[in-house]
Parts: sequence; C-alpha cells; structure tokens
Amino acid sequence: MLVVMKMEATVSEVEAVVRKAEDNGLKAHPIPGAQRTAIGITGNLGVVEPTAIEALPGVLEVLQVSHPYKLVSREFKPDDTIVDVGGVQIGGRDLVIIAGPCSVESYEQTLGIARRVKAAGAHILRGGAFKPRTSPYSFQGLGLEALEILARVREETGLPVVTEALDIDVLDAVAEYADMVQIGARNMQNYTLLRRVGQCGRPVLLKRGMYATLTELLLAAEYILDQGNGQVVLCERGIRTFTDHSRNTLDISLIPEVERISHLPVVADPSHAAGKRNQVLSLSQAAVAAGADGLMIEVHNAPEQALSDGLQALLPDEFDALVGRLRDLASVVGRNIPTFASSA
Amino acid sequence: MLVVMKMEATVSEVEAVVRKAEDNGLKAHPIPGAQRTAIGITGNLGVVEPTAIEALPGVLEVLQVSHPYKLVSREFKPDDTIVDVGGVQIGGRDLVIIAGPCSVESYEQTLGIARRVKAAGAHILRGGAFKPRTSPYSFQGLGLEALEILARVREETGLPVVTEALDIDVLDAVAEYADMVQIGARNMQNYTLLRRVGQCGRPVLLKRGMYATLTELLLAAEYILDQGNGQVVLCERGIRTFTDHSRNTLDISLIPEVERISHLPVVADPSHAAGKRNQVLSLSQAAVAAGADGLMIEVHNAPEQALSDGLQALLPDEFDALVGRLRDLASVVGRNIPTFASSA
Amino acid sequence: MLVVMKMEATVSEVEAVVRKAEDNGLKAHPIPGAQRTAIGITGNLGVVEPTAIEALPGVLEVLQVSHPYKLVSREFKPDDTIVDVGGVQIGGRDLVIIAGPCSVESYEQTLGIARRVKAAGAHILRGGAFKPRTSPYSFQGLGLEALEILARVREETGLPVVTEALDIDVLDAVAEYADMVQIGARNMQNYTLLRRVGQCGRPVLLKRGMYATLTELLLAAEYILDQGNGQVVLCERGIRTFTDHSRNTLDISLIPEVERISHLPVVADPSHAAGKRNQVLSLSQAAVAAGADGLMIEVHNAPEQALSDGLQALLPDEFDALVGRLRDLASVVGRNIPTFASSA
Amino acid sequence: MLVVMKMEATVSEVEAVVRKAEDNGLKAHPIPGAQRTAIGITGNLGVVEPTAIEALPGVLEVLQVSHPYKLVSREFKPDDTIVDVGGVQIGGRDLVIIAGPCSVESYEQTLGIARRVKAAGAHILRGGAFKPRTSPYSFQGLGLEALEILARVREETGLPVVTEALDIDVLDAVAEYADMVQIGARNMQNYTLLRRVGQCGRPVLLKRGMYATLTELLLAAEYILDQGNGQVVLCERGIRTFTDHSRNTLDISLIPEVERISHLPVVADPSHAAGKRNQVLSLSQAAVAAGADGLMIEVHNAPEQALSDGLQALLPDEFDALVGRLRDLASVVGRNIPTFASSA
Repeated sequence: MLVVMKMEATVSEVEAVVRKAEDNGLKAHPIPGAQRTAIGITGNLGVVEPTAIEALPGVLEVLQVSHPYKLVSREFKPDDTIVDVGGVQIGGRDLVIIAGPCSVESYEQTLGIARRVKAAGAHILRGGAFKPRTSPYSFQGLGLEALEILARVREETGLPVVTEALDIDVLDAVAEYADMVQIGARNMQNYTLLRRVGQCGRPVLLKRGMYATLTELLLAAEYILDQGNGQVVLCERGIRTFTDHSRNTLDISLIPEVERISHLPVVADPSHAAGKRNQVLSLSQAAVAAGADGLMIEVHNAPEQALSDGLQALLPDEFDALVGRLRDLASVVGRNIPTFASSA
Repeated sequence: MLVVMKMEATVSEVEAVVRKAEDNGLKAHPIPGAQRTAIGITGNLGVVEPTAIEALPGVLEVLQVSHPYKLVSREFKPDDTIVDVGGVQIGGRDLVIIAGPCSVESYEQTLGIARRVKAAGAHILRGGAFKPRTSPYSFQGLGLEALEILARVREETGLPVVTEALDIDVLDAVAEYADMVQIGARNMQNYTLLRRVGQCGRPVLLKRGMYATLTELLLAAEYILDQGNGQVVLCERGIRTFTDHSRNTLDISLIPEVERISHLPVVADPSHAAGKRNQVLSLSQAAVAAGADGLMIEVHNAPEQALSDGLQALLPDEFDALVGRLRDLASVVGRNIPTFASSA
Repeated sequence: MLVVMKMEATVSEVEAVVRKAEDNGLKAHPIPGAQRTAIGITGNLGVVEPTAIEALPGVLEVLQVSHPYKLVSREFKPDDTIVDVGGVQIGGRDLVIIAGPCSVESYEQTLGIARRVKAAGAHILRGGAFKPRTSPYSFQGLGLEALEILARVREETGLPVVTEALDIDVLDAVAEYADMVQIGARNMQNYTLLRRVGQCGRPVLLKRGMYATLTELLLAAEYILDQGNGQVVLCERGIRTFTDHSRNTLDISLIPEVERISHLPVVADPSHAAGKRNQVLSLSQAAVAAGADGLMIEVHNAPEQALSDGLQALLPDEFDALVGRLRDLASVVGRNIPTFASSA
Repeated sequence: MLVVMKMEATVSEVEAVVRKAEDNGLKAHPIPGAQRTAIGITGNLGVVEPTAIEALPGVLEVLQVSHPYKLVSREFKPDDTIVDVGGVQIGGRDLVIIAGPCSVESYEQTLGIARRVKAAGAHILRGGAFKPRTSPYSFQGLGLEALEILARVREETGLPVVTEALDIDVLDAVAEYADMVQIGARNMQNYTLLRRVGQCGRPVLLKRGMYATLTELLLAAEYILDQGNGQVVLCERGIRTFTDHSRNTLDISLIPEVERISHLPVVADPSHAAGKRNQVLSLSQAAVAAGADGLMIEVHNAPEQALSDGLQALLPDEFDALVGRLRDLASVVGRNIPTFASSA
C-alpha cells in the first residue's frame, strides 16, 4: 500500500500515518520527495481498511499495490485448475463446447436439440430451468420440471448438464440434478448464493456480471473457493458499454488476463454477448483464437418459436459448421476438440 | 411494435410477418416505403416475444414502441405515490433525509450517530446490518445483532429505521425489525428477492444497479408492485462509467425522468456515488435542486475508524452544515424539510 | 512514481530499475515487503516515460503518484482564475448565464432570441456559426455569415458573444469576431487547435470530450495555458455512458473536483447533456447547486423549426422561468446572478 | 421514420404531424393502436430533421428506421472495396499486416525495425511522425524529419508506409510522403480533416474514436467518400469502458458488423487496445479469427527505450512468432498472408 500525502501535509500528519500503520502491526517506509511525501506500507495489509488511512488528515490518496484475492491467483497456485464436469475436463488441452437451448421448453425440444449438438461435437448440454428475466411478465422457465427433463435427456444422450441456480431456494435441487451449477451474470455479486454454491459439491460456472471488473470477478470466485469448492470455471459473457451494434461487448482481453493472473479455466459465451446470431460465429472463433478453454453457445431448432432469446440462437446447421471451423482453429492454437467418445 | 423489413425482403416474407402477428391476435399495418417496407403491429403485445418476429426471414429489426412496465408508470397511475416509513412521508412535498453510518458497529456508535443526525434534522436512520462486500475477507456486518441495535436505537430516538435485506434468508428478520427494507444495488435484478420483498408488508427502498438502465430499474420495481406492494421508493446511487475522479457517476437526469414516467418517489444516495466526502456536499445539493424526494447520506463520528466506507462518510458537523444548506435549497424548489416533531 | 515488482522478481531486476531511475537523475527508494518489493521514485519525473520503466524485466506495474498537469492545478496557482469575456467575469462570485440558439440561422432569428435571453437575464450570447455534425448531410452552419450576424447582434444588444472554432482554418476569423472562442467536445484532443487557441488572445470555453477523464480535460487546458493563454473556462457537457434516457450523462461530480484541483472556472451545458428539453431545467438547477460558475443553455423561439438540436432548446418563456429559479438558487449557494447593467 | 404519439395526444396533434410530413414532400401513414397512435413516415427523409418533428406537441418519440449513411453501405455498393496501398491490397482474400514502431525515433531505429518486420512477413510499415499526446510535455514526434526517414526506409525496404496526419496543416506533407494517410482516433470527428483527406488522393486508414458508435464511424467514413475518395480502411482500436485490465476494450463484434453493413475493409489495432504486450498476441489472433482484413501492430527492438508506448510494443522475436501463428489461423478462416514478393 502506498500512501500519498498532500503537498501541504505537515510532519505530524506524516507521523500519524506511520503510527496508524505500526499500531496495526505493519511497517511504514516514508519516502520524502521533491514535492510531497509518500509512505510505503508493507506487511499483512488485510488487517487494515485502506479507507481508515485515506481518512487521516493530510492524506491525498492511497494506492493499492497487492491484489485483494488469494485463492484464485496463480501466484497462490501456479498450476492450471482442471474442472471435471461429469467426465468432461475443462481447463486442460481439450477445448470444451457447451451447447443447447436458452430455455428448456419441453422434453422433445430439449432431447432433439441435445442429440443434434452432440452429433455436431458438443460435450456438455446447457438449458435454462430457472430464467432471470428483466420483466416479471416474461417466461420465467419451467423450473423443477425442466430439471427433470434435463436429467432424462442426459440419460438418453450421455451429455453432462449445466443449468443456472437462480437463488438459494433452488440451489439444492439444481445441484442434485445438474452436473455443473451456473451462477448467472446478475448474481455474480449475490454473496449468499456464492457461499452456498461453494458448499454444494458441484463444479460451478461463474458468469461475469456485465458491469464487473476482472478483480470483482476474481473476488466472486474467491467467495466460492473460500468455502472449499475449487471447481470453478469463469465465463466472459460481454460487458455493458455505450455501443449499440451488439447487446453487450465481448471483452476478449479478459481471457489472456485470466490465464495470466489465475489458475481457473475461462470460457466465453458469445451468444449472450452478441444477442445476434450473425455475430456468434465470429465471436466464437475469436474467443478460441484468444485462448478460451471452452465456449457456451445457444442452439435452437426453431428460433422463431423460442420462448426466450431466439434471436441469438444458432440453427443446428449453423452450429455444425461452426464446430467444424473451431476444430481447425483449435489445432492452430494448440488445443483439441475431443470427440464425444473420448470425453464420455 | 414496428417491424422493419430488409430492403431485399420479398412479398411473401412481409406476409409471413403479418400472419405471425394475426395468429397472435394482433393487428398488422404494412407501410410500404421508397426503400423498404415497415409493418406497424398493434394490440396486446405482451402475448408475443419480439424476438419471435425478429427471427423471421426478411426482418431487419423490431422497434419497441410501448414500454414493458405497467404498474410503475404514470400512465397507469397519474398521482404521485407517497410512501409512509414509520410516519415519515416520502414522495410528497416534504424532502426526507435518511442518514446514519454505513455499518452498524456497536450500540454506542449507532446511538451516538443517530442522536447527532436527528438533532441535525434527519428523519430516518440508516445503518447496515448485512453488508454486501466485494471481498470475502472484508467486514460483513454484525447481522442479527445489528438489527437489534437498530431497534433499540429507534426506541431511544424515535427515528424509523431502514436497512438492507441481503438475501431471502434474512428478509423476514429485516422486515420484522426495520421500518423500511433496502434492496441493494447488487440485488436489483435478484428476482426471487424482489418477489419476496413484494410480499413482506414493508415499504421498500430499491437501489438502482450501477449498470442498470431506467427501464430495468422500473421493471425491478414492477416485480415488487406485481406482488401487491406499492410502497416502493427508487434510489439513484451512481452508475459505473469510465471516469476515475469519483467512485461512480451520479446520474442526476434520472430524477426528472422518473418523475415524468413513474408515480414512485425517487431519492439519491450521493455518498455511494461519490465515494469521497468532499463530493457528497455538492451532489446532495444537486440532487435536491434536480427534484429528488429525499437523500440518503452516510455520517460517521470517526470515519477513520469506520469498518466500511469511512472515506465517504460526512462528519457530524459537516452533516449539520449540509442540512442547513438543504433547508434553503428545498424552499427554492418548492419543498420543505420538516422538523422531526412534525414527521414523527 | 511507485514501481511494483513481481513476486518472483530477482535482486538484479530490482537493481536495474534503480539504475534506470538514477541514470535519469532521479532518486530510487526500494521498499522490501513481505511478498514483493516496491520502489518509490522521486525527482523530476517528467524526464522519464513511465512505460520505459514498466517495460523492464520483473516489473509488475508502475503507479503514478503526481499528476501530469501543472499550470492548471490549484497547487501551482492557489487563487481562482477569473475569466473576462467582454466585461463579463466568469469564476468569481457572479453566476454567468450563456444562452442562445444552437445555430445562427438568420439575423432576425438571432437578434430576436438574443433580446429575449438578455431580457431574461443572460450575460453572454451563444450561437453556432460552424457546426460539427455527425453526418455530412446535416446542416453545417452559416459560417462566416453567422460570425457577422453575431457581431451585429452584439452591437444591438451589448451581449458578448461565444461561438465555436471548428478548426484552425476558421480560428482567426472566430477570434476576430467573437469575445470568447469555444473548443467543442469533439475537438478536446485536437492538439493543434488547442495550441493555436492558446495563442489567439481570446478567452476560451473548453468543452469536455464525452469520453474524457478529468485528467485528460485538464491536460487539454494545459496545452492552452502552456501557450500563454490563461483565460480558460472548462465546460462539463455530459459523458457517454450506457444509459438511454438522456443523450449523455451530466457528470455533476466533475464540478466540485475541478474546484478542488484547479483554479480554472467550470460551467455546465445541460442542453447538450440532456438532449431533451424537460431535463434541462433540472440539470441546470443541479449544476448551480453543485457549484458551477455558470451555465450554457440553448434557447430557441421555434424549436420545431430549428436547423439543429431543436429538441433540447428551451422556449423563451421556459428560459425566463428557469432564470428566476436560478436567482433564488444562486443566493442559497453564495452566488449572485448579476443583472446585465452591472456586468456590461 | 416512425413517430410515436403520446397516449393523450389529440386528433389535431396527429394531423399536425401528418401535415408537417406532407409539407416536406413525405408520405405519412397513421397507425391507430389500442393505446396510442403511431405514424409511419416514408420518402426522402433527409429533407427533415427528426427533431423538428419530435418537437411538435403530442409527440412521444421519433424512431429512425433507415440509417443516415449511404456511400459506405453495402446496400449502396454490394461488392467489397479493395484498397490499394503502394501495391498491397487490403479487403480481398489477403490478410495484410501493418507493423512498425509507435514513433519514428531515428533512421537507424526505423530501418532496423522495418527490416525485421519485413523479414517476419509484414506488408506495410507504420511509424508515427506527428504524435497526438495527452500531455503537452510528452514527446510529440519528429515531424517532417520523420516523414523523410519513412520515405528513405521505404526506398531501402520496399515497404509502403502509413503514418498519421495530425491536422490539416501537415496533411499535404503526409500525403506527399506516405502511401496511406492515417486519421487517428482522436480525430475521427475532426470533420475539416476528414473532408481534406477525402481530397488528398491517398488511401486512408480511419481509426475509430474510443467513444464512437459504429454508426458514427461509418458517418466519419461517409465524409471522406463524399469528397470522392473511396479508398478507406476502417480500424477498430478499442473503446473506452469501465474495465481496468486493459487500456481499452477491443470491440471484436464490430468486425463482422462492418462486414455485414459496409463494403469497406476493416482492420484491428490490438496494440493500442491492449496497451500491454501480453494481450497483443491473443487479441491479434482473435481479430483474424473474427474476420479482420488486416492487423496493425507495434513492434520495437528496445521497448524500454521507446519514446512512446513502449509497453505495448512486441519484440521482434515475439512478432516473428505471432506472424507464424497468424499464417495458420488465416488459412482456417479462408484468408492468406502473402509473402512480400507477391504483394510488392
């Protein structure tokens, strides 16, 4: 921590900062400069709120040097974490494709799409049971019925299943039925839910809030790891910006930064970022080229009849073509898209 | 709803859009233009997902004409809603001041600050019992103990109390102890919590998410009203932007827009927007001048010892001076800051 | 400057940073910490590019402690700068109102509006001669003819005139005709234009780019002061954010921050920020309550016939009412709106 | 254009809108709805400012249906534009790599880097002669001397040269020396400069402003095409967002959207977007995978001594490795990186 004093700060104000640090068992290193004094503070910084120092007289600002997360950092655990979802490994050399409809609408619809995406090369089935909807008047998901449908479709196809736990009420049910529990973007800072999912015994797909910095995303994951659950996959799904040609802006640079800072795998969700089918292909390719460990893509056999987000779902034929393209791309960046036999 | 066809759309594609609308009981009004055809669609639009139409062949885009909220809109209820919080009226001519510490830290601290802010002119006491913290290693609030402290301080001072319900687990307890339940910015789209707070029988202070549009804020309130609870106060607390001279950007223009579109009261939280004490004064004055129905301001007697957000808390003396200034401002904009006797 | 080393940085990498600093005549103060070393660097930091150090092996990041501007800072010049525009003082106790049409459309229109706003209490006339338009097919302003109209209207009314210099080609003409030269938001980082306006001998109204941080705005002003022209007024006109209920978001918190950091006056342009007439009133009041030294407001007698931005222009009657309200507000915040006689 | 009337709009207010449209030679198509009336307006909409209609009584809002650009749109010119830069074709099947130092610092430095990037596979040399710098105290470029250096290095290496024209004063010199004129992000809405570069007879590299929407970028290009210069390449270089792990956010989705809407080529500048060397590799790969027609990459032989932006420059060896990787990627997406012989 670096404490920057105001130009007009007095000697006794500098001393008060030093004392405050030492009272908390920290070391203070004053650096007198031409214009002003700065004070480096070292030790276990977790014991003191930076604002407690920033509020002292004569202090101009406090700069944080070390990052507030620990368990998720590569400095703490240098080796890549590999997350196992019903036998599918995320975070290793394999590039994992998660695909399926936005919402589970019926057994027939879900099974049909699951068979199609499996044939095309997908490894994990996605499908919303509980849907977070901006309007109370929109379709809210089939709920428990959808969980049962997903379980039956898994039995039919062998595809592990990921679906969102919308709140702590339904978390147990989701963890019972699904192979991986998704925490949605709107819940990235729902700390109660994060703690509970850290105790649920299932791997977690943690989506970045559309307003969240990388540090905030990593701290959300830290809540989960802090409860003993290290099986967390981060998901970049687009941030909110001023642009209007896509629903959100896929923040590709997050992918190499996560790789550099954290040992957790990171996948991309180009469907929700784009909000438009025609961008999904390009963004999927971009995410793989940038080093993503996997993709989550919405596929629907009849998008114009979808109960939610039909506009961004790929048609099965488009998905076939995309996976073909991704196979070639993956090999260029040193990855491999396994055929289902090898991962099931 | 206006459906804009592509320039190269065929006659049969236009007809398919018309048919889709009519199949849903709607009326379609094709508008042939020089370059392309548009189709106005009228009727009860809630029955059809816009994306179901946007996904049809030949469609360029779908523009929404009517807004997706109803109960919160002034078109639905022209008269201002007045929310009663333990005898204090928010949304009428009175300008209401909510003040107190960021976190409840002890009985003595809370009582001391409560007495001070009451003497200065505040009408409602704020104080966090359950704190949403970005890091799992930060102080998370005293929880139930804090609720009991708030209740005792209310008894001592007569000030009604508002505090945040962080999740559905603690909602009942918060609703039992507090006069008003706060939904925090990070929970603005926690739909389960919104529905429950819509059934809790207490007035609600709904904070805008730092990434939320006005429409999303109004739809979050719609979730609450849809459950039968019309006692909702909206709160502007700053949005996330690229700027770095304040923690968030207080979006002053939201205040007159809410006034125009909705019958719900709107207050401002300059403390969280600014993140810095020296901006709180200016932003408070600006919010009142722009027509806010009230303010929520953090006050702490020893900010440098605060367990959270000390940097943005006003000192009691600063708060005194601010309220004095606000009294004069309020009268200029046709408002009144009642003395406590008249509101208790 | 604080150089933060990576945890795994070697002793010789730390030494290389120290040497680099000393080679540039600076002093280096290594601060060994529990986890990593940081190095405080003091002296005349302008001589070294931070990136030259950040690019050294073992360096994690470089934190800037001092700010890159000088002439504009209150540390450099503690007293408020007062800018004189044809006898009107901006930056002192008086609150200055600049008003007029978006574009100069004709002599009659401009004179009519000028008389109206003068009668209402405005001190300076605004009116665009050269208009920066997003589309090449929009009205681009009357150019030189407009400058002559403005000069004639000044003669008739006694109101000093401010208008935008769109580029270096027209700067001389603008500086010849106008009492104050406006640099538009799109030109805030047009460094050639900034330098020239720094030599033009006229006071400058510098609008903040809609994407600019406070530091960037101050550095843009520094370009002007660096050429010897200290008569600069900053103008907050809204930043681009994700919101859609206003054209831009007026960043009220910039006003107290400028006041704290810089000696330059700051005014607000609520018309361009809002883009909607009904928000202009509230934002104007908010800006004054927050401490702005003045306002720039668009007024048009027939907004539905305006050649640009009619939607945000106040009607003369609305402007009358606003100025009345602002007089009362100004006195509450210790300001005064002078009647024209006293300022002319 | 769709005019949406307020719910309480009167019949005569609707008629006034119809009349206003017809007075401008347009056709009006009223669409009476259950709750409100909308009015479709067709014809040559360029003749009327939307705000002129939005300002009429009873109007709620005006929705734009057609886009304001023409010459740049694929609807206007369906075939891809191919831009020829000294014999190098941008916009065809070839993927073009522009590389070089941020700033031209000396003949030896520029020649050394040029030889290295040519050997690695680059097709065009970049190098700043006139640098737009946020601070007036930063290195501003060698100016004319740099133009001469670039010309000599072109003679030595055969590489065509692109460099920025910072203002209209230096445009003629830049156009004389360089094979392609760059318009920087800060100048994207410098309309005078855009018009002049539209007359300069050289191909143009137009960088997107960090705050600009796609529509604004296309309208900036429209200014150039409108002057008769159709040789324009768009460049995505990152937008300003709230994130802090990269300098800007590379907006990958712009690439497929430009491809869909416009016939102009689009390249990406990952160096300026990232601001950090370690992200440049990933972003370069992502941009090619998303369909970019080329890349512009900063390379420096001694980044820690660079006079500007050293932190984001690749080392020559890193650049070699990147181009190797890009060759493989290009072939997967149907592109080809020509060896220099074939393009020179």
